[in-house]
Amino acid sequence: MAIKLIGFAQSPTTARVVLTLNELGLPYELEGVTDIQTIKTEDFIANKHPFGKVPVLCDDDHVVNESRAICRYLVSKYQKDAKTALIPNDVKKASLVEQYISYESSYYDPPLLKVLYQEIFSKKRGGTTDEAVVKQSLEELEKTLDIYDKILVGKDYLIGEYSLADLFHIPCAHTLYTDTSHGDIFNKRPNVKRWIDNLRERDAYKKTYAK
Amino acid sequence: MAIKLIGFAQSPTTARVVLTLNELGLPYELEGVTDIQTIKTEDFIANKHPFGKVPVLCDDDHVVNESRAICRYLVSKYQKDAKTALIPNDVKKASLVEQYISYESSYYDPPLLKVLYQEIFSKKRGGTTDEAVVKQSLEELEKTLDIYDKILVGKDYLIGEYSLADLFHIPCAHTLYTDTSHGDIFNKRPNVKRWIDNLRERDAYKKTYAK
Ligand SMILES: N[C@@H](CCC(=O)N[C@@H](CS)C(=O)NCC(=O)O)C(=O)O
Ligand SMILES: N[C@@H](CCC(=O)N[C@@H](CS)C(=O)NCC(=O)O)C(=O)O
Repeated sequence: MAIKLIGFAQSPTTARVVLTLNELGLPYELEGVTDIQTIKTEDFIANKHPFGKVPVLCDDDHVVNESRAICRYLVSKYQKDAKTALIPNDVKKASLVEQYISYESSYYDPPLLKVLYQEIFSKKRGGTTDEAVVKQSLEELEKTLDIYDKILVGKDYLIGEYSLADLFHIPCAHTLYTDTSHGDIFNKRPNVKRWIDNLRERDAYKKTYAK
Repeated sequence: MAIKLIGFAQSPTTARVVLTLNELGLPYELEGVTDIQTIKTEDFIANKHPFGKVPVLCDDDHVVNESRAICRYLVSKYQKDAKTALIPNDVKKASLVEQYISYESSYYDPPLLKVLYQEIFSKKRGGTTDEAVVKQSLEELEKTLDIYDKILVGKDYLIGEYSLADLFHIPCAHTLYTDTSHGDIFNKRPNVKRWIDNLRERDAYKKTYAK
């Protein structure tokens, strides 16, 4: 077995996969992308990702792309030999993991990514920040986090125990904390704050963001 | 076992669940929502969906919401007794189903939903259509479908055999065909057209959209 991950080392979507690899204790090689043109070549589009995006995982000769699909694949294939269960075997519990993953990708990730795009990625490429988009996205995120603060009452993690649903929320939150001035949006909600603190305590989190 | 589905009978997200129920041959009762206020009550938010949305599935006393999570739950719980396999047991094949589901929710559903929102849902609520949004979303969808037309070369379905990934694409396509003038966007791409025709031939499709 040899796992190779192709990705932008600092991007939230690649970090999502790295967190999963670290939770499952899997060794891997990161092939960092430094020039976006390398993921737009005919060869990359034909053999790695038809939309010209990363992350892409190569597990020996099996190629799979899209961060959440890659993480699910790693869990399906390797969780049985790992110390941590990211998707419970119990069908009802697993359905709640999927439910919270859908909240993440429907109501949490989209506004958060817009803020990160405006304040970080756009600037890096020499663009400007559209303050109206930032304001509107932060308002949307506030509404989502108000609901999360209720969901998380009395709980350490979304379904009670740690799962892939919690993990999927980490990368964008981490980047908002470290690279913008908006981290307070998590801290001012007590249950959300406790949850994020729990996530940051995990060994896989520390390992992923060590450098 | 008694399955109850709460939803807007004509909405794409509810149709996604109905298609899955029909593919798996599961009997269910549809509790149609006719007044949006019924999904914004304190009781609904506390016990059915914290974001006040539908569809919601009640399988005896197990409640799960969000269309894609509900469909995955139905597959995990009931596929073993059904004639059709929507997620293959093979881990590699299943990872490609997840990859295509991620294309659907990342690159296909968002522009398509924007068109449907502007041309149908907004009008129904007495709003107007923002033609600039329609134009931009159709352009985005054209780019996605150009890529799908390459993915689908020589294939009947996305991973070769029919799967949940194909099914997830159906509801928005169906609504675009029947309720707007943009259905041609699928027809003018030969491999996409063949694929959509295959999807419409299925018994579950016919049953879902019979009335
Ligand atoms: N839905 C994809 C999103 C991947 C994505 O947007 N990746 C970015 C880097 S973080 C990318 O490849 N951008 C290049 C481009 O879109 O041209 C996933 O979850 O993996
Ligand atoms: N991500 C959700 C979206 C559900 C959704 O947007 N449902 C609409 C009806 S199609 C709704 O409940 N709208 C009411 C609202 O948002 O206020 C899913 O896939 O189930």
